[in-house]
Amino acid sequence: MTKDAAMPARENSRRLAINCDMGESFGLYKMGDDEGMMPYITIANIACGFHASDPTVMARTVRLAKRHGVQVGAHPSLPDLQGFGRREMKLQPEELTDLIVYQVGALKGFLDREGMALFHIKPHGVLYGMAARSPEVAQAVADAAKVFDVPVLGMAGTQHERVYTAAGLGFISEYYADLDYADDGALIITREHHAVDPVRAAERARRAVAEGKVDSINGKEVRVRADCICVHSDTPNAVAVARAIKTALAEQLG
Amino acid sequence: MTKDAAMPARENSRRLAINCDMGESFGLYKMGDDEGMMPYITIANIACGFHASDPTVMARTVRLAKRHGVQVGAHPSLPDLQGFGRREMKLQPEELTDLIVYQVGALKGFLDREGMALFHIKPHGVLYGMAARSPEVAQAVADAAKVFDVPVLGMAGTQHERVYTAAGLGFISEYYADLDYADDGALIITREHHAVDPVRAAERARRAVAEGKVDSINGKEVRVRADCICVHSDTPNAVAVARAIKTALAEQLG
Amino acid sequence: MTKDAAMPARENSRRLAINCDMGESFGLYKMGDDEGMMPYITIANIACGFHASDPTVMARTVRLAKRHGVQVGAHPSLPDLQGFGRREMKLQPEELTDLIVYQVGALKGFLDREGMALFHIKPHGVLYGMAARSPEVAQAVADAAKVFDVPVLGMAGTQHERVYTAAGLGFISEYYADLDYADDGALIITREHHAVDPVRAAERARRAVAEGKVDSINGKEVRVRADCICVHSDTPNAVAVARAIKTALAEQLG
Amino acid sequence: MTKDAAMPARENSRRLAINCDMGESFGLYKMGDDEGMMPYITIANIACGFHASDPTVMARTVRLAKRHGVQVGAHPSLPDLQGFGRREMKLQPEELTDLIVYQVGALKGFLDREGMALFHIKPHGVLYGMAARSPEVAQAVADAAKVFDVPVLGMAGTQHERVYTAAGLGFISEYYADLDYADDGALIITREHHAVDPVRAAERARRAVAEGKVDSINGKEVRVRADCICVHSDTPNAVAVARAIKTALAEQLG
Repeated sequence: MTKDAAMPARENSRRLAINCDMGESFGLYKMGDDEGMMPYITIANIACGFHASDPTVMARTVRLAKRHGVQVGAHPSLPDLQGFGRREMKLQPEELTDLIVYQVGALKGFLDREGMALFHIKPHGVLYGMAARSPEVAQAVADAAKVFDVPVLGMAGTQHERVYTAAGLGFISEYYADLDYADDGALIITREHHAVDPVRAAERARRAVAEGKVDSINGKEVRVRADCICVHSDTPNAVAVARAIKTALAEQLG
Repeated sequence: MTKDAAMPARENSRRLAINCDMGESFGLYKMGDDEGMMPYITIANIACGFHASDPTVMARTVRLAKRHGVQVGAHPSLPDLQGFGRREMKLQPEELTDLIVYQVGALKGFLDREGMALFHIKPHGVLYGMAARSPEVAQAVADAAKVFDVPVLGMAGTQHERVYTAAGLGFISEYYADLDYADDGALIITREHHAVDPVRAAERARRAVAEGKVDSINGKEVRVRADCICVHSDTPNAVAVARAIKTALAEQLG
Repeated sequence: MTKDAAMPARENSRRLAINCDMGESFGLYKMGDDEGMMPYITIANIACGFHASDPTVMARTVRLAKRHGVQVGAHPSLPDLQGFGRREMKLQPEELTDLIVYQVGALKGFLDREGMALFHIKPHGVLYGMAARSPEVAQAVADAAKVFDVPVLGMAGTQHERVYTAAGLGFISEYYADLDYADDGALIITREHHAVDPVRAAERARRAVAEGKVDSINGKEVRVRADCICVHSDTPNAVAVARAIKTALAEQLG
Repeated sequence: MTKDAAMPARENSRRLAINCDMGESFGLYKMGDDEGMMPYITIANIACGFHASDPTVMARTVRLAKRHGVQVGAHPSLPDLQGFGRREMKLQPEELTDLIVYQVGALKGFLDREGMALFHIKPHGVLYGMAARSPEVAQAVADAAKVFDVPVLGMAGTQHERVYTAAGLGFISEYYADLDYADDGALIITREHHAVDPVRAAERARRAVAEGKVDSINGKEVRVRADCICVHSDTPNAVAVARAIKTALAEQLG
């Protein structure tokens, strides 16, 4: 975190921060167990209708987060409902910034209704990966975040950190509890998320926070730096994973 | 107008208010001559992506309005890009309110970027007509407007006026310079707008403001009450119509 | 059935016909257990992308039906992915026919690839209900079906039967095993389908086929006429219901 | 042309073939002067709803082509209405083939209604460019074309020619009358098309057909090979360009 004010609390609770993508249902289609996850997370990244969700799902998810005292950020995406925002598209930087402003603004409408503040922005899916690699894409994200003056969630050591920080924005780094890391520390983003062993995921998360290390998909030790832990709600056993991580982090930090 | 504070200025300038639907282009598709119209209007109803527009069009239209000192409101619609929001859909009231909150919030993102305030909300197309007739639909609009605490533009003597006023919201009544009125004073909304004679339209607008009267499509005199005049930018000769009305109203009010 | 040639087989097997809405997943969103249902049905109504599905889901569902020897028809809808085609829209008849031709044609592309013939058309969701009540809507469906010269699935005793038959099209009547009937025999279409007791549903289906009778939601005996039985795949226990009905019908018809 | 049967007529008339993207309006949005262009072309590439058009526009455009005796092919696109199919997306080959089968099938529905045959497929916008460069993308196009057993329109000397020919499909090469060519013969695809001088465009087209040469954007002579000429209907003065080319080619071939 670059700006002290952006995270809600002190050192210890910061390390307990668990963020999760929420509100990814769409019409009659269900995705993730938001009710089950909410008790175990502290920050919700709420979908804004471009890769998932619709206005009514957004309204309900914001209310659910409020009930659990969970901070809410926007989870904007490329415009790709069929591909769940996981298919790369080439957009002009201006277009991309405008798409993000639109989505974050829309979410803010629902936050306004509940008297809640926007906590952060986290780019979704392939947009997250593109911003990690491309300074131009990260800058487009930063340009949107500046409108709302909130920190951006991303991966330490990538263009996320470099560009958001240079833009004077807060930066919140995260470790992914249910995804694999390549040998170079890059995240391996898949279209569908698979179940992971909660015990192993919790131990990896504890080690990532405590020691700043994680084993890559090939077993190589990779350094990670993380202000918070991310769990995906569409990982099949997401609730068990989140619960195990919350417990592990609580024990770790006493 | 119910709330004194909602209109930007004094009695005279209020009567000069001309509102216009703006920002209805979409991607490469052009609709209306926004650059041509902006000098002749005082209030822009900006499309929010559900019947027309996209985030980049919204961004540009907000900037254009700012440059001309034009007040900006949201022009939310049913979700129907193919039908330009002019095909009736049956939605649950909660769904409808959520759709409107989403669209207005999205527009506010672009206003935030330009340091502008949201001036009003005006339901678009068939949603406008549905709200005029149905207290339930008008209430769904009012529930969204309360989130943003802005007045709603609509037709006097309809559920617009009754419901928005009862909800404690400001209400701005309008007269349509380029549409026909039925014998009962109801507006005749068409899918496409046709060219109208600017001189005749301006004289009708002047009479509507000064005498509160307009001739129906059958030549019957109908009473109207209007805080402002509406001109559609997709009427083929919209710029000429707006210019003629602005001139007529200026002379009228001297 | 008006045209003898339209149903695949003889009297007995005709009465065994069970149709089911299939291929209603969308991108990563899953809906219904198509793999589980396919063994128990004889006719698949495949979604065409307007209320559910996408081209890849369509391709896979057609292949799955082929593997199980299931006949395939098109299940066109109003254009409403968020509302799953269950929200009424007012369209011009020409627009409606064109929407249906588009969707059926799209499905035929996938049937062409597998060397399969289009078996029928069944309007989806609220379009089904609108066509049952409105001769104009039923005619728009018939106008599309005539392009492909296939029978239309619908409810006996409604505008479905009257209009499709008058248009010279085959008509296949159906009984809904997992929905309730009103006292006047009208189907009660809900946005979400709820689990039903498989034993009771099978007994009702057997009685509908054997005696032409069903109890309404208020316990009143209502006459029904049905060439085949419909089971919804998004009914939570759909596979159990379909299996029970198949067994009951097989026993019935020996 | 690989397959002799694919082009409608003899050597001379083949060289007179002029293809044009048609039916790119959408709802109330107009694009191109289809009525004005139809008399000057012989082959229409009709949009299928993914970058432009809707079912009603498709129906009308097919009828218009029929009236003018113009051959009709499908003009499938990446799914990107806002970007008019001109923004690159990364899709799986299977997804891409399915998207194309869906769109071509949909168009065939309208051709079936008019008793017309599908003449060809031409990938639209950035998909055209991607297929020219990438054997994998061209193969995905070919896999869809094989379902309908029609030739594919594309650029000679690119993966279009190599892959479609290797797949046993007919290949129709084309020269772009209103776009610029790079020094290496690659087409320069822009998001919006600009007016070109009809006289110069016609002379370039004549030379391309007669001599197989065109000047690049830098004035370098580039070799081209073309079975037909392409004119874009959204080029501002498209009708004048098409008329001039038709005249030039007619004189040329006398």
